[in-house]
Amino acid sequence: MIIPSRGTRLDPWFDSYATRAHGMRSSEIRALFAVASRPEVVSLAGGMPNLSSLPMDHIADISARLLKERGTRALQYGSGRGEVEMREAIVEVMRYDAIHQHADDVVVTTGSQQALDLVTQIFIDPGDVIVAEAPSYVGALGVFRNYEAEVVHTPMDDEGLIPAALDETLTRLYQIGKKVKFLYTIPNYHNPAGVSLSLARRQEIIDVCDKHHVLIVEDNPYGLLGFDSDPLPALKSLSPDGVVYLGSFSKMFGPGYRIGWAAAPHAIREKLVLAVESAILCPSQLAQLSVTEYLETWDWYSQVKRYREEYRERSEAMLSSLEKYLPQCQWTKPTGGFYTWVTLPAGIDAKAMLPRAVTKRVAYVSGTAFYADGKGSDHMRLSFCYPTPDTIREGVKRLAGVIKAELEMIELFGTQLPADGDTPSRGVDRPHPDQV
Amino acid sequence: MIIPSRGTRLDPWFDSYATRAHGMRSSEIRALFAVASRPEVVSLAGGMPNLSSLPMDHIADISARLLKERGTRALQYGSGRGEVEMREAIVEVMRYDAIHQHADDVVVTTGSQQALDLVTQIFIDPGDVIVAEAPSYVGALGVFRNYEAEVVHTPMDDEGLIPAALDETLTRLYQIGKKVKFLYTIPNYHNPAGVSLSLARRQEIIDVCDKHHVLIVEDNPYGLLGFDSDPLPALKSLSPDGVVYLGSFSKMFGPGYRIGWAAAPHAIREKLVLAVESAILCPSQLAQLSVTEYLETWDWYSQVKRYREEYRERSEAMLSSLEKYLPQCQWTKPTGGFYTWVTLPAGIDAKAMLPRAVTKRVAYVSGTAFYADGKGSDHMRLSFCYPTPDTIREGVKRLAGVIKAELEMIELFGTQLPADGDTPSRGVDRPHPDQV
Repeated sequence: MIIPSRGTRLDPWFDSYATRAHGMRSSEIRALFAVASRPEVVSLAGGMPNLSSLPMDHIADISARLLKERGTRALQYGSGRGEVEMREAIVEVMRYDAIHQHADDVVVTTGSQQALDLVTQIFIDPGDVIVAEAPSYVGALGVFRNYEAEVVHTPMDDEGLIPAALDETLTRLYQIGKKVKFLYTIPNYHNPAGVSLSLARRQEIIDVCDKHHVLIVEDNPYGLLGFDSDPLPALKSLSPDGVVYLGSFSKMFGPGYRIGWAAAPHAIREKLVLAVESAILCPSQLAQLSVTEYLETWDWYSQVKRYREEYRERSEAMLSSLEKYLPQCQWTKPTGGFYTWVTLPAGIDAKAMLPRAVTKRVAYVSGTAFYADGKGSDHMRLSFCYPTPDTIREGVKRLAGVIKAELEMIELFGTQLPADGDTPSRGVDRPHPDQV
Repeated sequence: MIIPSRGTRLDPWFDSYATRAHGMRSSEIRALFAVASRPEVVSLAGGMPNLSSLPMDHIADISARLLKERGTRALQYGSGRGEVEMREAIVEVMRYDAIHQHADDVVVTTGSQQALDLVTQIFIDPGDVIVAEAPSYVGALGVFRNYEAEVVHTPMDDEGLIPAALDETLTRLYQIGKKVKFLYTIPNYHNPAGVSLSLARRQEIIDVCDKHHVLIVEDNPYGLLGFDSDPLPALKSLSPDGVVYLGSFSKMFGPGYRIGWAAAPHAIREKLVLAVESAILCPSQLAQLSVTEYLETWDWYSQVKRYREEYRERSEAMLSSLEKYLPQCQWTKPTGGFYTWVTLPAGIDAKAMLPRAVTKRVAYVSGTAFYADGKGSDHMRLSFCYPTPDTIREGVKRLAGVIKAELEMIELFGTQLPADGDTPSRGVDRPHPDQV
């Protein structure tokens, strides 16, 4: 007689999940994000680029022509590694980061998120260590948790990763017998910290990782979006064999095609191709051909410069509003990208405050989302990429009202109110993907 | 003094890979597939649909209009679960399989391959068992190996999966303490076997799985492509809570958008959404909106019927050529889909013969690709989806010449020649993704 286990009343398959799946939980702040996307709420939470200046008519013409002239190719399966025209165009884009690679070194992916997912798949056994900045990108922490990695944070300052601290972290991990598989880093216009790794430190970081024989995974979605300058040389340009570089068209063009890439040392790149084939067979042909045509038929770097202007203006609106309305806070001063990282006055818990902020029609991401170890409640990430300057000013003003009320509460009762129905944070919050 | 391990001369990161990555190997037949894609070679190997009858002008107009009128949405990030219009359209498509689900039950993925990958990610810990037909889809076996599953095959006949044999397999696995996580099955126009699960057996398969409390993963890319008939009711329609259904637009429309889906019981579907977000953030908005518009503005079911006619004609060309040129073989008689499964005369090894077939300008997939346990060398998969009827006839004729030469060799020397430079098969061959 067979009496198999029958799960739970709510989920008959509960007993069948893999270990990793039990860690997949919908975040308690997810419901808030649904509320935060209401039109009356000013969202300073999202990571959606502003696409209003894209040349849509030209992009429409590209698509129509591709489908009319090369439709049976554009709608067919393609190579798992990506189309050669796409990879050659990516090689040209990477020259702006001082990277000189061959099209063979590039693997096209469904956004750079997939490249990150598959690099992690290739390197991480449960319990392996990934070293990442404190704080780090929420979408990366989610991937790392999915593969049951242990994330160890290493500190940053206004010049980005601190080489001596990284050396110390890696030495300590080696001494206690931990297997560090890679350093995950966002050197340019960090998400969420808003800082960049200085030129002087780039070689130092390479040297530290080389000393410990630790691979670097360099995530660079915002590199071209410096407000006043072309990009600094990528870590990949300084150490071609020691770095897997992740690139994306989501911020320098648009996320809707879901085209990103990895440029990786030979053996890793071959494994990545096998991993892409297993995960999705191949990236979209039509999307690749469309992005390639855009790069070839449009002055795409002028569009990048236009984005820079727009984001600079929005960043200025945010920083000046912070100065005006929130002098009791501190924040980083981004020179590019989408985000500033705000330190709250003592006693305020960003996560506990969030529901009350949403009630006051303003949203942000609690700092706790960006740590694997439960820290970050004294911070929040504010993004200036999507709302207009006026909306940003209104949002910061509303936020100031919320923080003022929290401080009054603390003064009255000695402590902040807990969030309604809030449960203690366990690991990483997972905002809606629109919001990362 | 830190002396970290430094990999190998060819790959400095060799020591860093995850256990699963050491199993990722490029197939020895991969080089052959590069040769097989030369224009002078007739490929009966590929699984590429024939797209020549698609209404490309109309599809081009859809794309252009979408980008002009809704460009900032089409090129933006979207929901990890997929757009609601897309999911509602998918619900309508599934009605042809007698499935009545809600749009909330659907998760949109980057082709159904990604749905399969993520279902496996959610359920499989290393060593867990997946039961699959013998033979099974090569792309699924690759995914299962990636997650370090143990695949146990269960037999089919001309009516598909054999319920009593499945019951026996599951009982035996339970008795030896193996944890069976799901049955992976392709009930309609099986790849590679070319057979379909009969109506009478569908409820029996459900009953066997229910008795053993084993989830069914029903992969149905070819369901609408029956030559003479509408689809039989899906397993999902008979057991909504016991089946994860995987669907795809690749064969009923075109693969280039990379849009597929899973329809899954509540708790599984919620985990799938989290898995999609982690893997790629969200599927392409532009692709989803394009496919939705195609379904809404074109008589897509007439296009499906046109595909059926084309594939029926090609299938007839193949079956009649097999009768004419290869009477010493046996083969299945598909009533839909892309493939027939050929049993070779005794003594012929399909894998060893392949390089010689390619020299004679014809290609197929060796049966060994479709088994996780090294079997299948007495079979080959022939596909009739992509080449024209005349090319198919020419290909089968060439194949007959190759087989004749092999039989003569066997008669002369008592054995077939080994393949040039061939190494023994280890597990699953991985054809180029164009070819699955």
